[in-house]
Amino acid sequence: MPGVAVPQEPARRRGRRRSGADTREQVLTAARAAFAERGYDGATVRHIAERAGVDAAMVHHWFGSKDALFTASLDIPLDPAAVFPELLHGPRDQLGERLVTRFLTLWDATGGAPLASMLRSVAAHDDAARMLRDFVTRVILTRVVATLGPDQPDLRAALVGSQLIGLGMARYVVKLEPLASADHATVVAAVAPTVQRYLTGPLG
Amino acid sequence: MPGVAVPQEPARRRGRRRSGADTREQVLTAARAAFAERGYDGATVRHIAERAGVDAAMVHHWFGSKDALFTASLDIPLDPAAVFPELLHGPRDQLGERLVTRFLTLWDATGGAPLASMLRSVAAHDDAARMLRDFVTRVILTRVVATLGPDQPDLRAALVGSQLIGLGMARYVVKLEPLASADHATVVAAVAPTVQRYLTGPLG
Repeated sequence: MPGVAVPQEPARRRGRRRSGADTREQVLTAARAAFAERGYDGATVRHIAERAGVDAAMVHHWFGSKDALFTASLDIPLDPAAVFPELLHGPRDQLGERLVTRFLTLWDATGGAPLASMLRSVAAHDDAARMLRDFVTRVILTRVVATLGPDQPDLRAALVGSQLIGLGMARYVVKLEPLASADHATVVAAVAPTVQRYLTGPLG
Repeated sequence: MPGVAVPQEPARRRGRRRSGADTREQVLTAARAAFAERGYDGATVRHIAERAGVDAAMVHHWFGSKDALFTASLDIPLDPAAVFPELLHGPRDQLGERLVTRFLTLWDATGGAPLASMLRSVAAHDDAARMLRDFVTRVILTRVVATLGPDQPDLRAALVGSQLIGLGMARYVVKLEPLASADHATVVAAVAPTVQRYLTGPLG
């Protein structure tokens, strides 16, 4: 599975036997099924662990948090617990800039394949669409917008989601030039003011 | 085929026999294949007509222009020849507002199905991705941005494309609330300033 930057097993275990990696993959498969069926709030780590036939403590050990397990199950190479404190640290009026920079760094590393795969699922299956909705709500809304405390937080989160989804589509899947090959500074200069306004500016 | 607002056959012909509709469908099938294989510039109306086994004059009669045939073949319910003069007419600093309003009117009428279908193809096939690239270049760049004569027209067209693709995904496919159910005034107030800046404002 390309691009999933979930916490790795400790290095000393690597290569000793396949079962660790296999089990982790089983957990991700169980997580995808559970999140798709029940949504983010309905799926519990305990249920996912049971479904994968492993101990819930092992799931916590590998993935750290339900958020991290969720993003890993979506093939989003992101550990929310590590990323968001870093994003939110710094001037509030440069949050758009930090968010777009992080987005580019994150997806440039893996290219278009995981994004195309996610979008294919989202366009084909309501379950996958719900997972992406939950992602925007849980991660963008709860972790970023809500901490800023603006008016209309739900609408702001959805607007940020719309521009980031569109940027991902344009740069990595549709490969719209010159956006697809533009350096980070160019994209950030163009797109960060949009994201910043959606986060903290006037909406009309 | 849902949502394709290509010029209809004259009313007097309707229902008389199926062959008109069948032939139009053959032309669209031939057009999809030709645009996917050769791109917008490489595919000619003459070649498409030959491929469909009809006279090129008939293709012009039905679709009016290569642009219109192209948008119809993409399932985009848009007749560029009718829409763009209307869009470009009016104050330049309200073009973002007119463009977003038109986008919402156009897609609200058909809902998410044609968009989801297009995105599924785009995420799955390079050919479909090329067609959407061509659409942004031909329609947004050539018909809208280039007529405004700003600096960096290619980047501006791609940025407009990114926000509109993302808005379409968020509202109609992912169904991100409250963006999915918001009235036009709310969406336009929030998104039009983004599109306006991408068209005519500073990019960084």
